[in-house]
Amino acid sequence: MGRATIKDVAQMAGCSITTVSFVLNNKEGVSIPLSTRASIFAAAKALNYRPNQLAVSMVTKRTNVIGLIIPDNSNSFFAELSKTIERAAHAAGYCLIYGNSGNDADRDLAYIQLFADRQVDGIILAKSPSISEEGNQHLLDFLETLTIPFLMVDRLISGSRGYSVSSNNFMGGYLATRHLLELGHHRIGAYTGSQNIVSSNERLRGYQTALREWGLPFEEDLLFEGNYQLGREKDALAHFIDRGASAIFCFNDMMAFGLYQEIRKKGLSIPQDLSIVGFDDVFFGELVNPPLTTVRQPVDQIGSVAVDTLLDCINGMTPPPHLRNQVFEPTLIIRKSTAPYQPASVDKFP
Amino acid sequence: MGRATIKDVAQMAGCSITTVSFVLNNKEGVSIPLSTRASIFAAAKALNYRPNQLAVSMVTKRTNVIGLIIPDNSNSFFAELSKTIERAAHAAGYCLIYGNSGNDADRDLAYIQLFADRQVDGIILAKSPSISEEGNQHLLDFLETLTIPFLMVDRLISGSRGYSVSSNNFMGGYLATRHLLELGHHRIGAYTGSQNIVSSNERLRGYQTALREWGLPFEEDLLFEGNYQLGREKDALAHFIDRGASAIFCFNDMMAFGLYQEIRKKGLSIPQDLSIVGFDDVFFGELVNPPLTTVRQPVDQIGSVAVDTLLDCINGMTPPPHLRNQVFEPTLIIRKSTAPYQPASVDKFP
Repeated sequence: MGRATIKDVAQMAGCSITTVSFVLNNKEGVSIPLSTRASIFAAAKALNYRPNQLAVSMVTKRTNVIGLIIPDNSNSFFAELSKTIERAAHAAGYCLIYGNSGNDADRDLAYIQLFADRQVDGIILAKSPSISEEGNQHLLDFLETLTIPFLMVDRLISGSRGYSVSSNNFMGGYLATRHLLELGHHRIGAYTGSQNIVSSNERLRGYQTALREWGLPFEEDLLFEGNYQLGREKDALAHFIDRGASAIFCFNDMMAFGLYQEIRKKGLSIPQDLSIVGFDDVFFGELVNPPLTTVRQPVDQIGSVAVDTLLDCINGMTPPPHLRNQVFEPTLIIRKSTAPYQPASVDKFP
Repeated sequence: MGRATIKDVAQMAGCSITTVSFVLNNKEGVSIPLSTRASIFAAAKALNYRPNQLAVSMVTKRTNVIGLIIPDNSNSFFAELSKTIERAAHAAGYCLIYGNSGNDADRDLAYIQLFADRQVDGIILAKSPSISEEGNQHLLDFLETLTIPFLMVDRLISGSRGYSVSSNNFMGGYLATRHLLELGHHRIGAYTGSQNIVSSNERLRGYQTALREWGLPFEEDLLFEGNYQLGREKDALAHFIDRGASAIFCFNDMMAFGLYQEIRKKGLSIPQDLSIVGFDDVFFGELVNPPLTTVRQPVDQIGSVAVDTLLDCINGMTPPPHLRNQVFEPTLIIRKSTAPYQPASVDKFP
């Protein structure tokens, strides 16, 4: 059987080719009943109909390019997320162009503008930490002015009315902390992401909830603010050791790997001296010494659902309200970087 | 002292503001002596003169955007190289947009076209493996038709007349192999990159040269062709074990990490059963178990020189012929994945 044509779609949907063309090309100023639109989309999906790209772009001014903005391309999590997004976009006939904001909120704005100017069909944004709530509001206001669809992935803004796809970060933080509590750790350091990032706040809320369940107080002093990037591990480790932590929950794997280096430099051992839990489950977690216990984000799912949702928006098939903010469940992967609490271990610290 | 103005540059260079403007804006159809051009560039550099971007783009149609095409963003080497390029471009007031070709030569062409259509000022390309020599020629012909500067980085095409920045891959291959020979290994497997990639062929030439120096024959049977990506490690390991290799030189770190996983699955140990050498020295090499002996590419240097050279081309300051193909020296980093040859180790194989 050959490729489905617009005629096949029209036949299946029971309407004219012109109507199908109007609907699928998202033509403005033409009034077509919602029910007709719905059956056309259903037929197009069922037939796996893919319009002739050249013809489409002449009619719709589409470019078949999606812009993706990530905060840090040297963080393996974003590399893996990008790869998934790329694969899904490519399979749908879209080309992806990237911007790397370097965790700089101003550069998020610059890239959004740049991509909009360069006529991408839609934008997927994993945002940088904002300096403030006003910064977040500014970004949201800016996004509202865009005439192209956009979607936030992984790092969201609470209260945004836009589309988003992410993990259940609260649950991830809870699972990581509960695991350490079950091993008998009572002084658990939290090496967090930046403030003003929802994912970090949610992971922290999970940490707090687990402590509360165990009847333990939340001590602000056991937190150390990271930024999801390598670089602050030396200070973080000193902070946690000074406060007698026997375990550290790192809010991403990259910072956990950074701690591995510092812990080794100090002549300490994982998990004998310190248990470590990460977050993301990037490829390298299995290969480091010892293999990293971590919270796995369903990155394949997040990436492909993000692309599907954005493409639906681009194609005028606005997803229903309950699919505006899609959240996927993380899982705890237990490897060798966590062990039962041993009181003796604390004495080893210099 | 305030920011240098065009007037300051004119004064220092001893010519009129109009002349400076013509030269710095790379205006065509105006004849200005080379010596005057040279002193204007020298003055602009000395004063760290940065033209008003808005005015410049109105005159020159510049966009201050550079396009970067890499073959695989989940390979940490390209993530690190991208980061360096990004940093250098950003410092020079340029914004970077990426494409990830997924090691598909057709997508290299698509991205070049896409970026050219979107009016980037220049393109940096780390190319995908070509299917054939004709494919390479096709890419070169295509690049020649572009009216914007481009530069190849890391993965080059031999015989290209364009600009390039890379490591001395021959030397890297030689250093890796000599290290294993010095440890007493005689049957050294080579897990190569794709054919038709200059970097892989050069690393192989270094491997062959070291063997020849040691008076050992080159056995084609000790090669296994990889593609610089994860995925073929299971077959590669079986191949090397069947041929009695006691050491494997992997042409990049990612494939070495893939072998680590397969070696562990087989219940074998590194370096007791097999010595492993990588190539690149990505961040994770230090963290894996055991830490990876590898050939370090000077990635910071490669990235920043690539950007400097491209910007010189964009600014009409064509680098002299001896700087067309810039090559930087790699260094061997000895860690724990290599050990002296022990005959007994071979018996351990199932």
